Amino acid sequence: MRASRYLIATQKETPADAEIISHQLMLRAGMIRKLAAGLYSWLPLGLRTLRKVERIVREEMDKSGAQEVLMPAVQPAELWQESGRWEQYGGELLRLHDRHGRDFCVGPTHEEVITDLVRNELKSYKELPANFYQIQTKFRDERRPRFGVMRAREFIMKDAYSFHINAASLDDTYQLMHRTYCNIFDRLGLDYRPVQADSGSIGGSSSHEFHVLASSGEDAIVFSTGGDYAANIEKAEAVAPAGDRPAATEDMKEVHTPDQKTIDSVSEFLGLPAERSVKTLIVKAEADENGESGLVALIVRGDHTLNEIKAENLQGVAEPLTMATDEEIEKAIGCKAGSIGPVNLPIPTIVDRSAAHLADFVCGANKDDYHLTGVNWERDVAVGRVEDIRNVVEGDPSPDGNGTLEIRRGIEVGHIFKLGNKYSSALNATVLDENGKSVVMEMGCYGIGVSRIVASSIEQNHDDKGIIWPDAIAPFQVAIVLLNGHKAPAVAEAGEKLYNELREAGYDVLLDDRNMRPGVKFADMELMGIPHRFVISERGLNAGTLEYKGRRDEDKQDIAVEDALPVLMKASPKTGL
Amino acid sequence: MRASRYLIATQKETPADAEIISHQLMLRAGMIRKLAAGLYSWLPLGLRTLRKVERIVREEMDKSGAQEVLMPAVQPAELWQESGRWEQYGGELLRLHDRHGRDFCVGPTHEEVITDLVRNELKSYKELPANFYQIQTKFRDERRPRFGVMRAREFIMKDAYSFHINAASLDDTYQLMHRTYCNIFDRLGLDYRPVQADSGSIGGSSSHEFHVLASSGEDAIVFSTGGDYAANIEKAEAVAPAGDRPAATEDMKEVHTPDQKTIDSVSEFLGLPAERSVKTLIVKAEADENGESGLVALIVRGDHTLNEIKAENLQGVAEPLTMATDEEIEKAIGCKAGSIGPVNLPIPTIVDRSAAHLADFVCGANKDDYHLTGVNWERDVAVGRVEDIRNVVEGDPSPDGNGTLEIRRGIEVGHIFKLGNKYSSALNATVLDENGKSVVMEMGCYGIGVSRIVASSIEQNHDDKGIIWPDAIAPFQVAIVLLNGHKAPAVAEAGEKLYNELREAGYDVLLDDRNMRPGVKFADMELMGIPHRFVISERGLNAGTLEYKGRRDEDKQDIAVEDALPVLMKASPKTGL
Repeated sequence: MRASRYLIATQKETPADAEIISHQLMLRAGMIRKLAAGLYSWLPLGLRTLRKVERIVREEMDKSGAQEVLMPAVQPAELWQESGRWEQYGGELLRLHDRHGRDFCVGPTHEEVITDLVRNELKSYKELPANFYQIQTKFRDERRPRFGVMRAREFIMKDAYSFHINAASLDDTYQLMHRTYCNIFDRLGLDYRPVQADSGSIGGSSSHEFHVLASSGEDAIVFSTGGDYAANIEKAEAVAPAGDRPAATEDMKEVHTPDQKTIDSVSEFLGLPAERSVKTLIVKAEADENGESGLVALIVRGDHTLNEIKAENLQGVAEPLTMATDEEIEKAIGCKAGSIGPVNLPIPTIVDRSAAHLADFVCGANKDDYHLTGVNWERDVAVGRVEDIRNVVEGDPSPDGNGTLEIRRGIEVGHIFKLGNKYSSALNATVLDENGKSVVMEMGCYGIGVSRIVASSIEQNHDDKGIIWPDAIAPFQVAIVLLNGHKAPAVAEAGEKLYNELREAGYDVLLDDRNMRPGVKFADMELMGIPHRFVISERGLNAGTLEYKGRRDEDKQDIAVEDALPVLMKASPKTGL
Repeated sequence: MRASRYLIATQKETPADAEIISHQLMLRAGMIRKLAAGLYSWLPLGLRTLRKVERIVREEMDKSGAQEVLMPAVQPAELWQESGRWEQYGGELLRLHDRHGRDFCVGPTHEEVITDLVRNELKSYKELPANFYQIQTKFRDERRPRFGVMRAREFIMKDAYSFHINAASLDDTYQLMHRTYCNIFDRLGLDYRPVQADSGSIGGSSSHEFHVLASSGEDAIVFSTGGDYAANIEKAEAVAPAGDRPAATEDMKEVHTPDQKTIDSVSEFLGLPAERSVKTLIVKAEADENGESGLVALIVRGDHTLNEIKAENLQGVAEPLTMATDEEIEKAIGCKAGSIGPVNLPIPTIVDRSAAHLADFVCGANKDDYHLTGVNWERDVAVGRVEDIRNVVEGDPSPDGNGTLEIRRGIEVGHIFKLGNKYSSALNATVLDENGKSVVMEMGCYGIGVSRIVASSIEQNHDDKGIIWPDAIAPFQVAIVLLNGHKAPAVAEAGEKLYNELREAGYDVLLDDRNMRPGVKFADMELMGIPHRFVISERGLNAGTLEYKGRRDEDKQDIAVEDALPVLMKASPKTGL
């Protein structure tokens, strides 16, 4: 490609509303432009990288035996009503109606459509397992789209759905997809980790997320220092403290704590550390048969935080987790939220494992401006139901028994799920088994955030000059920068010759033939992250040389003109696609 | 690809609701499945062909110097309000609002978005001309989607938009796109014609459509028998009859024509041919400054039909063309629609060129159940405004003066427009010219119906056994059918060997290793339209042969096993992509 005929839309200024580095650099390098909140146009440069990511994903999916399909983006409401998600999905589902007033949505995911397709097409266990995927534009109406294409409303996703005669076959494909995802992220040059994850609203029994490690990541990822354990903090188990609960040594006392409404202020007021107290959070209980729901108290140690995902997954707790209002709390308990505690609490409680291990602790007295000290389980209040409802913290013992936990930030770029029969059962997707008996299929689903990968790669590969692309997904692998090419025919001619030579060798080459100052051209190529750069100048040619510099190199090197291709092939053995 | 691991979803029965052959065969061959009215899923087989069409379109667009981008499918209403199309576009625009209540549409086309992008990115005439394209899923909420992917609501389109400093540059790119489209349709193996077209609601001064000729086509295409003239009937000029209007020979008479309401019945009643009469159609006039619009009469010869596009393009006629209601006619003229005529008509008239050439003609008397005979222009009524407002008919003289016109059916697969400054002016998309003066850019736009091309190709390439793909877009170029491969290891082994050999030579190969009767497998490969077929049998192998048959061949031929690749390379010199 000749830069003079190409939209190079670089910007010097860092856009004010771009918070993270990938968003800033994608705008500055001229990869994307914002159309509206969460909606981005991909400029030619950005699209080149996006397509290379797509290609790697497609090649590895094909290799795994998955079959590519393309389902409509706009989906009829009927199928979502059949699965129950038309009501459940919430505000992210972009609902609309057509000119005849029929309900549709712009698909955020395609479980319903593929299950409908497969129930009509596959009739026998002999046709299983089958795994169908697509690479497609999806829409999720995020309440707060942010970080550019990282959390956009419209984005490109690879979604795959597998169908099985039984759970063992699902397990095989699940493992195959796990390996396939590792191959994909390896080829993309990402520093990533597969971690255990919660299955969330999509349902199912087991799931793993693939996270790119980056400080800007929106997820907290938990690792064991001594073993392979890795999980999203949403899922990571907080194991019960070792040993028995310590014995009581204090008497329970009521203390006046005027205006002390938070754990920290109460702790300071009483001169006790936060881990000697509990906090009591009041949430909605699961609705009963009549659709009425009361309240339930969740109790965690003062220095811990509630894990909302764990909590809402518990029987008896409303999903999604819904905090009680101040009015509801006052009506049910008779005090304000800052003074609640388990002793004589008139609603059911669920106590976290660590909180249940405390002795001589502090809690609210269920009376405004009063707390209790020296409280002990069983002696002063029955501990009742104990569950894992808190977020792990650094230093917690690892659930696999190997070492302790450390926490890092991650960007979710892939997610694989065992759906089981959630959708196949709702849509009655059956095949005949070996005995001619109708069996509901087992399903798996497997997503990759294709457009998000582009941003994630930048989060891991940049410096103060701009992006540093891995060769595999660079928009161009090589830049040839001509110095005064418009004035020096020899430079233009040598550039043209090298351009053709490198392209014939299979490289994606950008020939920077623009009539601009050298410094501007160098800065653009660096900002755009082109991994390899040749500079052709009149002076160099007179000496029979040109200049090579890798994007990560400290220094440039003068090489013989005829060595350009060999030097490049050594630096980047993989030729263009 | 191994057929045993591939979704081969062929059907014997012709689906009841599929009217045209391509729709029937795409369903029967297992290329697509209907999700809802006008919404189709592409199964693996169909998607392979769709992707090959996309690739050819992309390669030729890239070759022309156009730059690929990807704009959001969901577009904010604001830009459409800026261009004025939010109100104008009508029911085909799928409007919706997001969770915050803001208006959006699912894009049927992207003039507004690209113009907004370009007005922000391009600043100087030096960056022009520029041509941006994308290959993307579009949505048009057709009132009556039909013919499968031929007229679907969701479909894949290649849309390109070019920007220019002046009309001469637009003209250059327009011609380049014309040549590029010819290259694309040539490579796709289509029998097509570029024809002059009306610019329609998209606006602009000049346009050509590219039509695939097929009896199922929804458009009538007009050709000159003696020259190159070709046009959509919407656009084809009906030239004025040669010579002067004949002299009057009859007196004007009022005739009682009870219950004769159509041209045919009046002609029969009077014993005169329809071409001796005129029909008078009453439509809404263009609104005046106060937004009020009266009526206008359009007069064509009795045997001709009104060309609505020509009519609505006329100054003074409301666009879109709107027929007056019976009530409006009675109120303005005082008679029913079947008895209207130009003599003493109290509203403005526009007379077609052929109607204006008549002498001694018949028309309504503006009095129920009465007609006039022997009417003559100027003597009995002023002819007034004469325009071309009728559809041409076979045998009309060609507008280019070479021969007469013939009419065929066509499927529109491409359309190129000179938009001029319609959008750039509305959105104030300017650059600085050589003198530093701000200039509104000229624009062109260029569409190709990518998914429609798949169906169009089938309309031109099929027989009673199924589809006959051209090699360039066949889902697989070659089928290797194993006879009893699961029982005969030699057959399976020979099949595997040939499969690898042909793939290494660059062919897309489907190895039919299914455990099925030979007849079923042959029928599937023929229905699916695979251009080349090898059959491997135990008997053949014993004689050192296998069988080759081209999809269009009458007879199969036995060839030596080792000749398979040479035979294929002769029949299909182009290897796989």
